Amino acid sequence: MTKELKGIAASDGIAVAKAYLLVEPDLSFDQKTITDTDAEVARLKDATKASHDDLQLIRDKAKESLGEEEAQVFDAHMMILDDPEFTGAIESKITDEKVNAEQALDDVSKMFIATFEGMTDNPYMQERAADVKDVSKRLMSHLLGVELPNPALIDEEVVIVAHDLTPSDTAQLNKKFVKGFVTDIGGRTAHSAIMARSLEIPAVVGTDSVTKSVKAGETIAVDGLNGDVVVDPSAEQQADFEKQAKQYAADRAEWAKLKTAKTVTADGKHFELAANIGTPKDLEGVHANGAEAVGLYRTEFLYMDSSELPSEDDQFEAYKEVLESMSPKPVVVRTMDIGGDKHLPYMPLPEEMNPFLGYRAIRISLDRQEIFRTQLRALLRASAFGKLRIMFPMIATIQEFEAAKKIFLEEKANLEKAGTKIADDIQLGIMIEIPAAAVLADQFAKHVDFFSIGTNDLIQYSMAADRGNEHVSYLYQPYNPSILRLVKHVIDSAHKEGKWTGMCGEAAGDPVMVPLLLGMGLDEYSMSATSILKVRSLMKRLSTEDMKKLAETAMNENITNDQNKELVEKFVN
Amino acid sequence: MTKELKGIAASDGIAVAKAYLLVEPDLSFDQKTITDTDAEVARLKDATKASHDDLQLIRDKAKESLGEEEAQVFDAHMMILDDPEFTGAIESKITDEKVNAEQALDDVSKMFIATFEGMTDNPYMQERAADVKDVSKRLMSHLLGVELPNPALIDEEVVIVAHDLTPSDTAQLNKKFVKGFVTDIGGRTAHSAIMARSLEIPAVVGTDSVTKSVKAGETIAVDGLNGDVVVDPSAEQQADFEKQAKQYAADRAEWAKLKTAKTVTADGKHFELAANIGTPKDLEGVHANGAEAVGLYRTEFLYMDSSELPSEDDQFEAYKEVLESMSPKPVVVRTMDIGGDKHLPYMPLPEEMNPFLGYRAIRISLDRQEIFRTQLRALLRASAFGKLRIMFPMIATIQEFEAAKKIFLEEKANLEKAGTKIADDIQLGIMIEIPAAAVLADQFAKHVDFFSIGTNDLIQYSMAADRGNEHVSYLYQPYNPSILRLVKHVIDSAHKEGKWTGMCGEAAGDPVMVPLLLGMGLDEYSMSATSILKVRSLMKRLSTEDMKKLAETAMNENITNDQNKELVEKFVN
Repeated sequence: MTKELKGIAASDGIAVAKAYLLVEPDLSFDQKTITDTDAEVARLKDATKASHDDLQLIRDKAKESLGEEEAQVFDAHMMILDDPEFTGAIESKITDEKVNAEQALDDVSKMFIATFEGMTDNPYMQERAADVKDVSKRLMSHLLGVELPNPALIDEEVVIVAHDLTPSDTAQLNKKFVKGFVTDIGGRTAHSAIMARSLEIPAVVGTDSVTKSVKAGETIAVDGLNGDVVVDPSAEQQADFEKQAKQYAADRAEWAKLKTAKTVTADGKHFELAANIGTPKDLEGVHANGAEAVGLYRTEFLYMDSSELPSEDDQFEAYKEVLESMSPKPVVVRTMDIGGDKHLPYMPLPEEMNPFLGYRAIRISLDRQEIFRTQLRALLRASAFGKLRIMFPMIATIQEFEAAKKIFLEEKANLEKAGTKIADDIQLGIMIEIPAAAVLADQFAKHVDFFSIGTNDLIQYSMAADRGNEHVSYLYQPYNPSILRLVKHVIDSAHKEGKWTGMCGEAAGDPVMVPLLLGMGLDEYSMSATSILKVRSLMKRLSTEDMKKLAETAMNENITNDQNKELVEKFVN
Repeated sequence: MTKELKGIAASDGIAVAKAYLLVEPDLSFDQKTITDTDAEVARLKDATKASHDDLQLIRDKAKESLGEEEAQVFDAHMMILDDPEFTGAIESKITDEKVNAEQALDDVSKMFIATFEGMTDNPYMQERAADVKDVSKRLMSHLLGVELPNPALIDEEVVIVAHDLTPSDTAQLNKKFVKGFVTDIGGRTAHSAIMARSLEIPAVVGTDSVTKSVKAGETIAVDGLNGDVVVDPSAEQQADFEKQAKQYAADRAEWAKLKTAKTVTADGKHFELAANIGTPKDLEGVHANGAEAVGLYRTEFLYMDSSELPSEDDQFEAYKEVLESMSPKPVVVRTMDIGGDKHLPYMPLPEEMNPFLGYRAIRISLDRQEIFRTQLRALLRASAFGKLRIMFPMIATIQEFEAAKKIFLEEKANLEKAGTKIADDIQLGIMIEIPAAAVLADQFAKHVDFFSIGTNDLIQYSMAADRGNEHVSYLYQPYNPSILRLVKHVIDSAHKEGKWTGMCGEAAGDPVMVPLLLGMGLDEYSMSATSILKVRSLMKRLSTEDMKKLAETAMNENITNDQNKELVEKFVN
């Protein structure tokens, strides 16, 4: 039966394909006393073999579609299945305690997980706990005769339907066959949404109930431009979706022509369109989409994709690669933004009741200076290879910026004394993501070289609403006049001191926000590389004078987020 | 040996007395295999008897100093000790499993606690888990021969020294003997600090190391005015403390004369000094200190001190009592502010990663409207008995206020139709504690009757720093120019529309903040009742014109919290 759902448009594009349900199956069981323990051990062995077969198949597929590195995790899983300490312990439990295989598996796996998780001085072994969990789940599914979703085995075109998608779920997906995502929860800034945009897969998130509305194999149509989802569409609906898909493909072809063009408005003003990146691997997309700069290089991946603090040399190599590849275009590198929801297995942080309001980013860097100094030295050394701008995250007070700058100057002086070549035009700026810093931007502008507004956090703190919390997601309001006024004050403050302002949150690539930002005079727009050409095309149609009036209405006449969304959409479309 | 410590001045006054260490003793133990189980059971019985004796003594003392109701909790503890299901289970464990009494106690108490905590449909039984914890701790201390602090037994003058003080610790203290508090952690807005001010006990918090610097019984001197603590003071130091204590007593006598005086500045301007209350019991202090209004009635205690949602009639009685007692002076009642760090045992809330940025206060009220409507009906009925102002907490958007107002008007119309007498001058206002609302105050002012600025939360969100998190406590900066600018914008916005602005955070009674707030034109100052006379005395010395200049410098020339603190202190002292 045809069902229509409305969600949040999270990644552009249109897709129609079979639904693939990526949902956690019910693996609950009852404890039973067993008389025929031999038969029970035989059940366990069958399940072990079936799990092994699964994993071999998944490993082969993963190697083919994702590469050898991604496939190796499944070797680790098979090794656990082959380990007599693990399966032997389950067998003994069945024989000695006469419990059913499910109960024995549950007891043994819990013990292994607790043991691994307890090895707090050995992060490598700690991570093995997750492997044991995965393997136990698979073994349990075979014992219970329940089918586990195996996304790595997908070999036909599908739309993935899930409650939510974790980064590890998405890592297993083969982009060749996955034509779209639809989830129950999440917003535009959720991991799944960011991942979808980076993979250029259409996605609608936050539909509330898609996992309950569609059966595996039913046709599902996804409109990631407008947030519409249709389960089992009529022939007419399907034709309509296909027509829109064609239009979108035509738009994309048009945008592609802008790859080497400058970003210019209808009235001939130039603005800079930049890309957000996480690792040097992302540079390919940056160049392919004609970015004029890297507006945000998130260095925390260097720390997160490692089993210890990255060395100065390792960091230097990564920064140099990005700077050289972009040169002479500028690269804004954000210093370590750990804490909040980002943790390092080898660097324990305090347990906090509200981590988003806690010990994170520059607060850690100023407190554990050796980590910070290592990063700054690596950046200083890399500065000789391109145009470097350094940005400090989570600055709340001018003292924090001055403290960070002092450390930077000390490391610079030390390196210079040692004869290291360092660029003489490194700019030092801050993220504006804390309301207090936005309010005091006129004073900050006398101290810093530039601002970059981080809208995700700025909105989260200004509205006092965790952007990951579905109960308050209605308060994620980028167009709320209060947010727009803060942004405008930051831009004006920078200009008054001859400085520039960028934006590197999701909002910078949002077609509703861009006209308002143009009207406010924002200098640099940093976004997912895949959004750049679309925004460049949009800007060509807009005149800054018109947008100024639009922004004025949005900030000082309208009073709600929705009014402003409507205002811009009416004007632009 | 004399040691000087510096902390945060949390409650005014000076005290010199013996230190009483209220610290958690080390109750760790090793599991042992026991051969003589009879002897082990005998050890358990001795410990049980000793615990029983303790509890009987504490119960008697508690009845004497705190009253029968507070003493009854110890009856519940003795009943657990007498319960064969509990002590019998420990005995059996010793006999059957041949483990030492400590291990047997630990196993059994954990099981009981888990069972009670699991009774999610019976809040009464859930609360028993805390009793089992308390009793088990006492029994364990006797088994280990470790002394447990028994604050209820204090019978000489002492200064309490603790890492931190919980509300339940303070409930057991006899004010007659407790002359001061000193703690390792916490700030001016911690529970222990608020409690100390309400009990009028001098307190210094956040000394970092007092529990490690003083031995039980050593003399300790506390200066809650300046945040100084001296362990084992010299004769000279002690004399100095006593001189200051005398001066403080003289000041207090002077302030007491202002009880019935109007609050007037040196240049003859009137401002309103109001009190914050939690229950009708607090009215005594409100009248004793000459409050001109109740500026914040925190209704959540009605919900927290109950085992189910309070009925409309129960609420009506409480509101009526406060309104009648204050009439014709106004009472600002804040609607339910649950969530964040305040939970109700009978109303499960979602688990949240950042509860301060989550589902709380008006967000719950607008979502679970029956609870909200009940509260509004109780308030509407009580309005006939005094001068009622209703305030909604955690308002972020104008739509939220309009939604709350609509519900209020619906309930009002229903009651009026039924012939209920309702005041016709009820004002509807909002807390300004979310940065977005402060920024948009000029628009809000067209919709509401008044603002009341909640500085604790406003600072927390504006600085993106959890006020309870010691790792970021340096960012609790009430004098930061960014905070002052937001406050000024709110006040000006209200005045432009002919409305008034109050402040009900801790800052409203802070002698450094008050001069700045006077300069900004704040209309109403709501604080702990015990701060009112001191602030009234301070205001007599200040001229609004001078303060205007001071506030101007603080907002637009100075750039840090510390500069502003110094600026005011230099001017006022």
